[in-house]
Amino acid sequence: MGKHLTSRGEDYSKWYNELVVKADLAENSAVRGCMVIKPYGFAIWERMQAILDKKFKETGHSNAYFPLFVPKSLFEAEEQNAEGFAKECAVVTHYRLENDPDNPGKLRVDPNAKLEEELIVRPTSEAIIWNTYKNWIQSYRDLPILLNQWANVVRWEMRTRLFLRTAEFLWQEGHTAHATEVEALEETKRMNGVYADFVEQYMAIPVIQGVKSASERFAGAVETYCIEALMQDGKALQAGTSHFLGQNFAKAFDVKFATKEGGLEHVWATSWGVSTRLMGALIMTHSDDSGLVLPPKLAPHQVVIVPIYRSDEQRDAIETAVLPIVEALRKADIRVHFDNRDTHKPGFKFNEYELKGVPLRIGIGPRDLENGTVELARRDTLSKKSVAQADLITEIQSSLIEIQEALFNRAKDFRANHTTEVDTFDAFKEVLETKGGFILAFWDGTEATETAIKDATKATIRCIPLDTKAETGTCVYSGKPANQRVLFAKAY
Amino acid sequence: MGKHLTSRGEDYSKWYNELVVKADLAENSAVRGCMVIKPYGFAIWERMQAILDKKFKETGHSNAYFPLFVPKSLFEAEEQNAEGFAKECAVVTHYRLENDPDNPGKLRVDPNAKLEEELIVRPTSEAIIWNTYKNWIQSYRDLPILLNQWANVVRWEMRTRLFLRTAEFLWQEGHTAHATEVEALEETKRMNGVYADFVEQYMAIPVIQGVKSASERFAGAVETYCIEALMQDGKALQAGTSHFLGQNFAKAFDVKFATKEGGLEHVWATSWGVSTRLMGALIMTHSDDSGLVLPPKLAPHQVVIVPIYRSDEQRDAIETAVLPIVEALRKADIRVHFDNRDTHKPGFKFNEYELKGVPLRIGIGPRDLENGTVELARRDTLSKKSVAQADLITEIQSSLIEIQEALFNRAKDFRANHTTEVDTFDAFKEVLETKGGFILAFWDGTEATETAIKDATKATIRCIPLDTKAETGTCVYSGKPANQRVLFAKAY
Repeated sequence: MGKHLTSRGEDYSKWYNELVVKADLAENSAVRGCMVIKPYGFAIWERMQAILDKKFKETGHSNAYFPLFVPKSLFEAEEQNAEGFAKECAVVTHYRLENDPDNPGKLRVDPNAKLEEELIVRPTSEAIIWNTYKNWIQSYRDLPILLNQWANVVRWEMRTRLFLRTAEFLWQEGHTAHATEVEALEETKRMNGVYADFVEQYMAIPVIQGVKSASERFAGAVETYCIEALMQDGKALQAGTSHFLGQNFAKAFDVKFATKEGGLEHVWATSWGVSTRLMGALIMTHSDDSGLVLPPKLAPHQVVIVPIYRSDEQRDAIETAVLPIVEALRKADIRVHFDNRDTHKPGFKFNEYELKGVPLRIGIGPRDLENGTVELARRDTLSKKSVAQADLITEIQSSLIEIQEALFNRAKDFRANHTTEVDTFDAFKEVLETKGGFILAFWDGTEATETAIKDATKATIRCIPLDTKAETGTCVYSGKPANQRVLFAKAY
Repeated sequence: MGKHLTSRGEDYSKWYNELVVKADLAENSAVRGCMVIKPYGFAIWERMQAILDKKFKETGHSNAYFPLFVPKSLFEAEEQNAEGFAKECAVVTHYRLENDPDNPGKLRVDPNAKLEEELIVRPTSEAIIWNTYKNWIQSYRDLPILLNQWANVVRWEMRTRLFLRTAEFLWQEGHTAHATEVEALEETKRMNGVYADFVEQYMAIPVIQGVKSASERFAGAVETYCIEALMQDGKALQAGTSHFLGQNFAKAFDVKFATKEGGLEHVWATSWGVSTRLMGALIMTHSDDSGLVLPPKLAPHQVVIVPIYRSDEQRDAIETAVLPIVEALRKADIRVHFDNRDTHKPGFKFNEYELKGVPLRIGIGPRDLENGTVELARRDTLSKKSVAQADLITEIQSSLIEIQEALFNRAKDFRANHTTEVDTFDAFKEVLETKGGFILAFWDGTEATETAIKDATKATIRCIPLDTKAETGTCVYSGKPANQRVLFAKAY
């Protein structure tokens, strides 16, 4: 394994791309813009899935599965939604290949197998799902419907980056149907809160909850809630969104229900999703120039044990001492990996696990055996200490908790140091050009100002924060009156 | 809920289709041949996934994810595989829609967004995976690779049926790479064995393990192992397959490795999969004219509790008695559902849970409260008895075990009664026309005979069973010498 990772200071973007590949998380595939998620990367995603899935079920949702394809006529039914995704979607036009008469051994599309109606590979599933809900909903007794699906979706992005923006990605999409506006709005906020809790408590990434400005809303939504995180290069990353869809899809697909009072009304909707993009946030928030740094709650291996020996005799003696430790750690529900491969040297293994971000590394050699100790190294601080084998389980348990907290606090401090209140447009530009990060500034609420700021600086409104102090001032760009600071940043 | 299920005797195929929809398992979607898997059906599939995933991990496999699309040039690289799937694949030719100038508000495919190379929606992933493995494998140290992915695949079938044959289906596909032929063959057999164990022990469906004849092999395989189950209408269903791919894909994608001895050899491969088709097998094996019958190990609800009351007072009294029972059952790891909906009558609920196959139903009314009893009903036998509340947990635990065993034994008896050894072609045809089921008959081993039998009877060779007695005889069709009976049946 060639370690040789470009440093963040040298080229942040190159550092990220190299890290993703070298830590065995993902790589580009033969299909433009589509990635292969490698086993180590997928193991992290699986842990994230399991935790989120449990949270969705605890909040009353069930999983289901809807088709990959959306017929064009359904796709175009909700016009805003269709317009938002039409320019980047994969279209299936044929259902058969045939032998190419001009190229023996090669295939070509069979021109006689053209579909009567083209199928869009789902970029999101509102259309196909609301066309289905139409048949499921007659009366208020059929509501609410609280469903989620784990699925792949395709958006034909022109510029792609592993995890952050790929043509195909994995995600979950919740789609709920409600009898009242109030209930749908509550659901929208509840799920945004579930995302915030998950990202902060498991991914150790602090987020700001807020509402998108009209221009940044999901296509077809009345209101988009979101969680916004800050990366180490001072750019923001939208980590999850929860949409209040109003009655837009119910109207587009004619979904009405008989109310308790005997009326007939359109159904209220929400949708909400997080994707493999979260992997990008995880990597960029915590990792350093030595490689990935994983929060213990999500690490596939929380502890790795590397034996250090010269002779077969030493090897056997170490293994005899290590196996009971492994068993004790597993009993304590700690995910431990004993790397006893004889094909690689300890130094190689140390580098490998540093690169892969394993939170704790135990080194154990002949002298440790004599002393009844091990060497315990922390990935986040790169610090080492000698620990008595008798104290090991307790020490590891407390270290894992400490690391989880330390990563969150470090990210929170970084964010605090990179969040600036500005009151003039000159200060706004200066902050962006120097330290970057989040900028809290007054905005007059118009799309014209938002666009002008974006054109001048590339910064966008990340959100109108939910949790903010009451304050009035004048718009940083137009000078017009404004009654709240909003969150600006350059963003992924 | 209209119960009114067509009976099996009346029209088996209609019974199946109605049952799948009325028991809330799945339904047809707006996309030809693609299904919607409804929450109740998906909950069963999720349980199956969780158990299989654990078994795959216990046998050393990790999950990963490979792209949905396969570029045409990769798809056609392994010629047999390409030929096998070319006639039924969805082809993406464009990556953008545009406004249709002739139809305001409608979209059309943008002719300027034609892909340079068409993308096939994966019908199976050998091609894209082996094109990736090429970069992962240099030396024997990189082997074995033991991966699985849970994914959706698309095969453009002309005649579709919910779960049994759909254009899009969900499955898992294992793809492994090995240094030796022996190791790859062992893996092929091991995973077929894992499938057999799962289907028998969790789905309560007895299966016959065997090897496919050449004509029934997976396109691109050297040998296909399979598990075959028998449905109640006397037709066979292939429930899982495990393929020894030899060096076919390694040769097509030029995947070689440096051996320990310093040579350079092509890598050996396997692939294996089960799909949502298993849901069809589950439904058809156990269910009856009253609806679905679920084995307790896979039932989303193992026990449902229905309160029977006339007044609010009675309702409250029953709820007070039931809540501690629910808690005690949950503590004993029993999946219980207390249906205290006030909007539906007990009779409606009884029908609903019968239709949905919940293994045990508890009814509890005012008289039960007085007597300290409940009424316990078994779904498989439709029998009822009164049980003292004090004995309930024990009674339920033992009933669930009994039901699981009873379903398996009933299916095994059915199979025994519908497996016939025949020695003449007249007997062969008569069995097929009367009781159907599996036929064990001598076959001369030629494709010509296999085809002739299929043309004459629609029966195919389901497999050459692994576990069979040594016997010689003469081919039931050609009269030529044969040294093993093989398993024939009409099949799904």
